[in-house]
Amino acid sequence: MKATMKKTIETVPNFSEGRNQAKIRKILDCFTGVKGVKLLDHHKDKDHNRLVVTAAGEAAGVRKAVLAAVDIAVKNIDLRRHRGEHPRMGAVDVIPFIPIGETSMEDAIALSLDVAKEIWRSFRVPVFLYEESASRPDRRALPDIRRGEFEGMKEKIKDPQWKPDFGDAAVHPTAGVVAVGARRPLVAFNVNLDTDSMAVATAIARAVRFQSGGLRHCRAIAVNLRERGIVQVSMNMTDYTRTPLYRALEMVRMEAKQYGVNVIGSEIVGLVPSDAIVQSAAYYMGLENFTTDQILENKLND
Amino acid sequence: MKATMKKTIETVPNFSEGRNQAKIRKILDCFTGVKGVKLLDHHKDKDHNRLVVTAAGEAAGVRKAVLAAVDIAVKNIDLRRHRGEHPRMGAVDVIPFIPIGETSMEDAIALSLDVAKEIWRSFRVPVFLYEESASRPDRRALPDIRRGEFEGMKEKIKDPQWKPDFGDAAVHPTAGVVAVGARRPLVAFNVNLDTDSMAVATAIARAVRFQSGGLRHCRAIAVNLRERGIVQVSMNMTDYTRTPLYRALEMVRMEAKQYGVNVIGSEIVGLVPSDAIVQSAAYYMGLENFTTDQILENKLND
Repeated sequence: MKATMKKTIETVPNFSEGRNQAKIRKILDCFTGVKGVKLLDHHKDKDHNRLVVTAAGEAAGVRKAVLAAVDIAVKNIDLRRHRGEHPRMGAVDVIPFIPIGETSMEDAIALSLDVAKEIWRSFRVPVFLYEESASRPDRRALPDIRRGEFEGMKEKIKDPQWKPDFGDAAVHPTAGVVAVGARRPLVAFNVNLDTDSMAVATAIARAVRFQSGGLRHCRAIAVNLRERGIVQVSMNMTDYTRTPLYRALEMVRMEAKQYGVNVIGSEIVGLVPSDAIVQSAAYYMGLENFTTDQILENKLND
Repeated sequence: MKATMKKTIETVPNFSEGRNQAKIRKILDCFTGVKGVKLLDHHKDKDHNRLVVTAAGEAAGVRKAVLAAVDIAVKNIDLRRHRGEHPRMGAVDVIPFIPIGETSMEDAIALSLDVAKEIWRSFRVPVFLYEESASRPDRRALPDIRRGEFEGMKEKIKDPQWKPDFGDAAVHPTAGVVAVGARRPLVAFNVNLDTDSMAVATAIARAVRFQSGGLRHCRAIAVNLRERGIVQVSMNMTDYTRTPLYRALEMVRMEAKQYGVNVIGSEIVGLVPSDAIVQSAAYYMGLENFTTDQILENKLND
């Protein structure tokens, strides 16, 4: 039990292959055959030509599974022939490590450095450290590192400012480069409005997101749910420990008010750590002195 | 993992010994030495002269631990000399079994019947089945079975209506009788009001509780928090799957309104299953189509 809950690290590696079922299967197999590691989810997209894997377990197992998958990807994916809508710079594009439960960010950073080093040593793919593992502030954001993509990276990497954290200043001929780093769990949180006005949703998205003056750990865009005839503020909560879900929801409600628009529901897409939910429940219920130690399941897995 | 989350049964046996530390230790030891069983909590009270143990694990382990504790209690507790404020009818007064996670109520009932049978067979203590395990509707409520307590049980048990479910119609001379049964997890949920009027708290408690016309799975009393200068509606939610916490909270708020009184906070005492919290979070956040499968920790322990 301890291993699972106490020292769990989640990883969500992105592979540049969303079409070839045999190759996808080989990658997924890396996450099902390792003791102490669990494949939680995977999402393949033909348009994006990309595979997103979600797995978790104790550090040693996660390390083994990820490196096996990198091996498969480097041998089987040729970026020179890869086309897809999603920006990418490598056969394995990005490998985030996320501390779960009582695992510390330091543990996730340590694992990311270890894996990064090994990727260069074993596969000769240069690595950029990003997010919490970044060596410099201007390398925290993945889009900044990835700008130019695989095709532009051949030149970009020669710029001393973009010298990789591990490896030579030359891309792997077929596998490109990869970003590896630790980050907080990301919660995909959408809020639905009782209007079909994209202008309203866009204005609210701008109000709540960090980029344009809103909440520190919130990204947001407007999305048109045409089938339902409504619009949505679609958010990525990049650190719910500091910017809780309830705060984003109430801010959407507050901003919507001025347009005479109401919140009619919300949605969490994919997985969410239990304390993100407990935190919001405690807010709405006015719970005093509540701790996640009172959650029976946490106690059981203590 | 499966054992813990998938087929976990919680038990909260009550022992009629809250003073003698050596005896209490012997009972607790029964729950720490069994593989697959975890002692989650214990509460001893000198005034009540009672020990409440909370433990959980897979059925076979829980069975073993509980029967070992019954053995200790029967050998060491003499009800003829037991005094305490809490009503009691046996050395082991009551043994509830509670299904956790995906464990079914049927599993908990099966375990309760098995343990009940064994308590009579091994220790010659007559057993009444109660709550979900009850053999008749008038035996569901523990207070009905316990009425008369140890002292009155000698006569009561001879009444054909109170023939034990297991055992002869005669109490164990020193250990009395015991109630064994399966029940839903009980959540102790208190709501604080911005008044010091016990009359208001009492009126609200009456309004929300089942007994006097309120919510089906809610017991409630008024409590005076003298130190804070406020009163509280103290509730036992006896089946949060059917009567959610948010419903009780909003009903207290609604009733308080007519007295010009506001809810200033709430409190969960002790352990609570995660889905009781998720359920209320989903209500207040208006979460659409959210399932506990989306909780990362549940997925990990799947």
